[in-house]
Amino acid sequence: MLSEFDLIKQYFVRRPPNLPPNSPPGRAVLGIGDDCALLAPAPGRQLAVSSDMLVEGRHFFAGADPFTLGHKCLAVNLSDLAAMGAAPLGFTLALALPAADPDWLAGFSRGLFALADAHGCELVGGDTTKGPLNVCITIFGDVAPGRALRRDAARAGDDVWISGTLGDARLALAHYLDEVRLDAPALALAAPRMHAPTPRVALGRLLADGGLAHAALDISDGLAGDIGHILAASRVGAVLDVDALPAGPVLARQPQALRRRFAAAGGDDYELCFTAPAARRAAIVAAGAQCGVPVTRVGAITAEPGLRWVDADGAPLDLALQGWDHFTNG
Amino acid sequence: MLSEFDLIKQYFVRRPPNLPPNSPPGRAVLGIGDDCALLAPAPGRQLAVSSDMLVEGRHFFAGADPFTLGHKCLAVNLSDLAAMGAAPLGFTLALALPAADPDWLAGFSRGLFALADAHGCELVGGDTTKGPLNVCITIFGDVAPGRALRRDAARAGDDVWISGTLGDARLALAHYLDEVRLDAPALALAAPRMHAPTPRVALGRLLADGGLAHAALDISDGLAGDIGHILAASRVGAVLDVDALPAGPVLARQPQALRRRFAAAGGDDYELCFTAPAARRAAIVAAGAQCGVPVTRVGAITAEPGLRWVDADGAPLDLALQGWDHFTNG
Repeated sequence: MLSEFDLIKQYFVRRPPNLPPNSPPGRAVLGIGDDCALLAPAPGRQLAVSSDMLVEGRHFFAGADPFTLGHKCLAVNLSDLAAMGAAPLGFTLALALPAADPDWLAGFSRGLFALADAHGCELVGGDTTKGPLNVCITIFGDVAPGRALRRDAARAGDDVWISGTLGDARLALAHYLDEVRLDAPALALAAPRMHAPTPRVALGRLLADGGLAHAALDISDGLAGDIGHILAASRVGAVLDVDALPAGPVLARQPQALRRRFAAAGGDDYELCFTAPAARRAAIVAAGAQCGVPVTRVGAITAEPGLRWVDADGAPLDLALQGWDHFTNG
Repeated sequence: MLSEFDLIKQYFVRRPPNLPPNSPPGRAVLGIGDDCALLAPAPGRQLAVSSDMLVEGRHFFAGADPFTLGHKCLAVNLSDLAAMGAAPLGFTLALALPAADPDWLAGFSRGLFALADAHGCELVGGDTTKGPLNVCITIFGDVAPGRALRRDAARAGDDVWISGTLGDARLALAHYLDEVRLDAPALALAAPRMHAPTPRVALGRLLADGGLAHAALDISDGLAGDIGHILAASRVGAVLDVDALPAGPVLARQPQALRRRFAAAGGDDYELCFTAPAARRAAIVAAGAQCGVPVTRVGAITAEPGLRWVDADGAPLDLALQGWDHFTNG
């Protein structure tokens, strides 16, 4: 039977770590296997830290493919670094497992490390225990002082931008919940948006390092709810054009009402929503092109508080939309 | 009904944080409420990082007192910092809860912050979600380069030391499991060792800052198993005197066989086991006295690999002892 230490050694310890040659400074001085990992952040830099906990039956279906799950658990954390404009350094992994299943562990660790290696992000420590399946990752990134894309930095007059496309993750979920029916090719296109989101790390770093954006966050609970955090922290409002939202390719073929609802308040998008002065428009489009991520201008920050929606003609819309809340929705 | 954001705001956000005046440098530049926290470690220092995940029914009983649980979840993480000799800076908290119960949250957060404040350790971020009760804390500490008490630093000839006392936590558990019967005064003395361990942070810092110890770890799964990590990482062995182990005051009144077993392989002790050259004996006793924690010499590191037990007369003992393993024991 696989012991706790065999499990860690077999699936999660890798010496030397497989890092790309252009990895940022500040790697772990001491990794897995001691009471703590030791990190030496680069002098004069700040460390960005975020935790996300994913629970079976809530953030992923029971029986979810372990490779994809390994990817997703790290992706949602990398997405938080992206939303600060930080460069990934390392992460800890705490894992509660009902049993030490070698097939599951092999798939999970391969999915996890495939994404970690792509971002030069090192597993430095963690914990394993028996319990209902729960994955908690805490991630560390590196950012220059004053450059982080904070939620409290939006200014009246800023453009509001969205990376990539919205709503296809929610559309795939709707299919699984029998709310809509997608044909097989449509599901094949939408499902990876739900199961294996792509964190916009390169774009976030370009926006931060270049001083291109003011505020940013990653959209996990739906744009309509999430942008409220920027508006509250920055004490501003926004006008957003619901028809300008970049619907995913599968969602774009759905009826208008569904398209608007899932683009504006779908959830699980893991795209960046950021605000930036109008003078940066060309540079932002160039940054998007540089990392292969389309960027779309969807509205503006206003001095007047509150979120207002308009349609393609600029007419006000009364959208009853809200983000996902784990306790009131749950 | 309490929403996720109300829950965080009401129980976990505290501005300004309640920190003691002599807090170490490297506080959070940005705390709870953004995609990431931003930490600025002190220049030329290393960051020590550790995660522990506690699961209901496994690390604590269902229905455990929330104040005590808040204490314990942070205590086991502080204990990892202590075992590196690092000074606490901050932590993230990821919490899966079956429901947002205000009484539970009030108790848990009070227990958590009482201990956090005592150590100047700031809650900088985290995650809350619905799910089977699971508490995952990732903690950050500060240590001078080259001073951390690593598991691979024990040397042949070192003394082996134990802080505080061993076995009373396991004895309390034995009472709850009906393995032994303690009277009420004995249980009142032993139970806090199980429910509310005291992390040996001050002692760990003195050992590291003063260059007094070589290797260290905190004893969570029982000395017999845990010291094996030092022996393996340092490629050394040890001879330990089972009768020199500092049994807790309740365990000390139990029969010899039980006393030896629970002191050597009890678990949940959260005492430090450390190795140090004989030349440091007086300084180590003084360090213990300075922070009010007794320290006891229990054996020696040997060049020959393996762990050997002897009794008070130096006669070899064949103790069939092993640490706790979450998967093979579970």
